[in-house]
Amino acid sequence: MRFVFPLFEGFTTLDVIGPYEVFRSLPGASVTFAAAEPGPVYDGNGTAALTADTAFADVTGADVLVVPGGPGARRRLDDRPLLDWLRALHAGTAWTTSVCTGSLLLAAAGLLDGRTATTHWTAVKTLESYGATYTADRVVVHEADRLVTAAGVSAGIDMALTLAARLADPVTAQAVQLMIEYDPQPPFDAGSPAKAPQAVHDLLAARR
Amino acid sequence: MRFVFPLFEGFTTLDVIGPYEVFRSLPGASVTFAAAEPGPVYDGNGTAALTADTAFADVTGADVLVVPGGPGARRRLDDRPLLDWLRALHAGTAWTTSVCTGSLLLAAAGLLDGRTATTHWTAVKTLESYGATYTADRVVVHEADRLVTAAGVSAGIDMALTLAARLADPVTAQAVQLMIEYDPQPPFDAGSPAKAPQAVHDLLAARR
Repeated sequence: MRFVFPLFEGFTTLDVIGPYEVFRSLPGASVTFAAAEPGPVYDGNGTAALTADTAFADVTGADVLVVPGGPGARRRLDDRPLLDWLRALHAGTAWTTSVCTGSLLLAAAGLLDGRTATTHWTAVKTLESYGATYTADRVVVHEADRLVTAAGVSAGIDMALTLAARLADPVTAQAVQLMIEYDPQPPFDAGSPAKAPQAVHDLLAARR
Repeated sequence: MRFVFPLFEGFTTLDVIGPYEVFRSLPGASVTFAAAEPGPVYDGNGTAALTADTAFADVTGADVLVVPGGPGARRRLDDRPLLDWLRALHAGTAWTTSVCTGSLLLAAAGLLDGRTATTHWTAVKTLESYGATYTADRVVVHEADRLVTAAGVSAGIDMALTLAARLADPVTAQAVQLMIEYDPQPPFDAGSPAKAPQAVHDLLAARR
């Protein structure tokens, strides 16, 4: 079961590493990090680099494709070679997935036309401008189309556990959850726009 | 505010990237990944590599030290140069923190003697063999000693948000939570030994 994670400069690391920690532990999993060329690829903060094993051009198939978001995703919505590669891979995947603004890339590639999908809460209008219908669910599964989109950043962990139960079985998925001790206890309840207090929205608005 | 993440072969990527995504977003944050030598450092799965910016020897101070766990942590409990480096850095930190079995390294360095601490649920006996007292809390803060330990893997996110509220303020910490959309909705409730069903424990026992 081959999991392929495309990397590009300006990706968000947790979009990749959340699902990676889940999927890598499934029986028979193999993982490939792909990029325009092999080597270190820096994130949107410019301070963390994950190593790409191989070039996009050398990846011709995947069982599960996991497309991360980040500022670099928003900058690549006109990147024809990347969008063509995503479309070509999607034709042969068991599941094509995205985390955060990775769904913008799937949408720009035409894969979400007329479908419900999710994304980072700041990217709703952009997602819809590409023909998808935003839904505020944390994980959106389209079984028949083999498509799964997740909300912002940390939602990739929930997405991966949801899919792990289908790729393997629910007991195996829960075993992964136990091994990564995913029993979240956030010290605040501010993780969605609806839940965050006004002072938090004010702070973010002031920074823009 | 300088955040230093030591890397070593066999670390767990999410132990690093969970806190990284939180801390990197704080006002004035700078991030350094350090290792025995600069360059890519592979995780416990041997498939993901984060790039170390600099060598341990060239890092002589940190405001916040974040020690990850992973199989590589358990293999380094007799690594005198690493333990000496941790002790030396701790002398000047505002906070010294660990995620998962990173606390075993802090304990082996003598920093948790006689203190309560947490770790991955499979590492309790090892932690206590180094003189710490295990507590099943997800995040354990010792204000006077400037020490924070987190439970397994994903607990690093909760630890970092807890600490972010002290390093900055609670509104800033909640703004980070909202930007990483940390509104966890795990599809199962199996993230701790007490919550996981017997079938999950049986599966993990059968793999050992």
